[in-house]
Amino acid sequence: MRFLLTVQYLGTRYGGWQAQTNALSIQQVLEEALANIFARPVRIHGAGRTDAGVHAAAQRAHFDAPFDIPPRGLVLGVNQLLPVDIRVTRAERVADDFHARFSAKAKTYEYRIWNAEVADVFAAETHAHVAKKLDDGAMHDAAQQLAGTHDFAAFTVADPEVASTVRTIESIEVQRDGDAIRMTVTADGFLRFMVRRIAGSLIETGRGKLPADALWKEARWTAPAKGLVLRDVLYDPGRSPGLHF
Amino acid sequence: MRFLLTVQYLGTRYGGWQAQTNALSIQQVLEEALANIFARPVRIHGAGRTDAGVHAAAQRAHFDAPFDIPPRGLVLGVNQLLPVDIRVTRAERVADDFHARFSAKAKTYEYRIWNAEVADVFAAETHAHVAKKLDDGAMHDAAQQLAGTHDFAAFTVADPEVASTVRTIESIEVQRDGDAIRMTVTADGFLRFMVRRIAGSLIETGRGKLPADALWKEARWTAPAKGLVLRDVLYDPGRSPGLHF
Repeated sequence: MRFLLTVQYLGTRYGGWQAQTNALSIQQVLEEALANIFARPVRIHGAGRTDAGVHAAAQRAHFDAPFDIPPRGLVLGVNQLLPVDIRVTRAERVADDFHARFSAKAKTYEYRIWNAEVADVFAAETHAHVAKKLDDGAMHDAAQQLAGTHDFAAFTVADPEVASTVRTIESIEVQRDGDAIRMTVTADGFLRFMVRRIAGSLIETGRGKLPADALWKEARWTAPAKGLVLRDVLYDPGRSPGLHF
Repeated sequence: MRFLLTVQYLGTRYGGWQAQTNALSIQQVLEEALANIFARPVRIHGAGRTDAGVHAAAQRAHFDAPFDIPPRGLVLGVNQLLPVDIRVTRAERVADDFHARFSAKAKTYEYRIWNAEVADVFAAETHAHVAKKLDDGAMHDAAQQLAGTHDFAAFTVADPEVASTVRTIESIEVQRDGDAIRMTVTADGFLRFMVRRIAGSLIETGRGKLPADALWKEARWTAPAKGLVLRDVLYDPGRSPGLHF
């Protein structure tokens, strides 16, 4: 029986989503909790890797359970075994050919900036702090040239395993709510550091240091991991009952 | 020169506001940072003690500076020396007879509840988690009998140093915003554990376990420290330029 989990986490304490040898990963903690429930090793497959320090409001991951159990019991049981900074918010049975990563149609990331002279203690773990007042309108306008299908090589790092650096951004918005600025991007896929490099460049635009027309050719900033949140993973309607978050 | 500071902190790592021998206090960390700036010991006086694990959006504290410095420079300087979970958001010069505690006319506390079956990782440090759906309307209605001047002995612990347990609650509100429930209370003063005991009893009312008319005589629950935030300290207009938060 294949299950799809919706997973929320605060990435601060972790070396990222993916299992690795030199740091604790969210995947590893989740696999250990599931192994405890099923009394057998369980391998989970995430919708995407998030880097060290990056958070998720709704990461998705599937796994094949050794036996069927009620989804609600799975949610309650696994949360009993997880640390407070990782929660499974939903579990649902999916078809055997459903794949958290390959079935995904799009993802939404959010980049959060605390834009006030003094940082906010309640936002410290989940927002980058920029003391200088940013022009969020200019950031939003400049961001619109990234919408659509483009080669985003300028906003990632060279990786021989990635066949193409062309991606389609469905929407990108920059909005201010008091001292908080939120950039929300939905795309069919993301390259490594892509959101943080877009955010880093837009922050320079907001400071008045990077003209909008230089965005593509002078991208060279990477905003800190702690402001990044994987907001959602989107599947075809009918393949997953969809969001609850 | 007397300064009034507005201080924000996440209480999670601390043994409370007040300096003590067995745990790190916010007062102590702040006094050490100020001593560093003025190159002399500095004693600060808070508007009120907050217990271990309790947060503040706008605690106030005054101190007598060995010499005058520009308030903005003081804010920027002290924040360079403070850990990320403590911030001074404002500094202002006040009269020599101004006292952060004795000049205060009222305080506002907020109690935050995350009310969903699964706790939220982003709210984990600043909200108490209640899985069962609470009737926030019933909580708000029951809370209204606490408004006004009453003897709040039922909502505190015996303390021979406290001459009177009579206090005046100016307003008390319970509001829901999605899965978050917020109780906001403004009073001329608060007794030890008073807000957490009111919140604890109202949660039982919200669960349907404590009838509204039994609130006064059966109060015996204390909600966890992590949901409590000192929201503001109010002074006479003219004595302090007032809020920025």
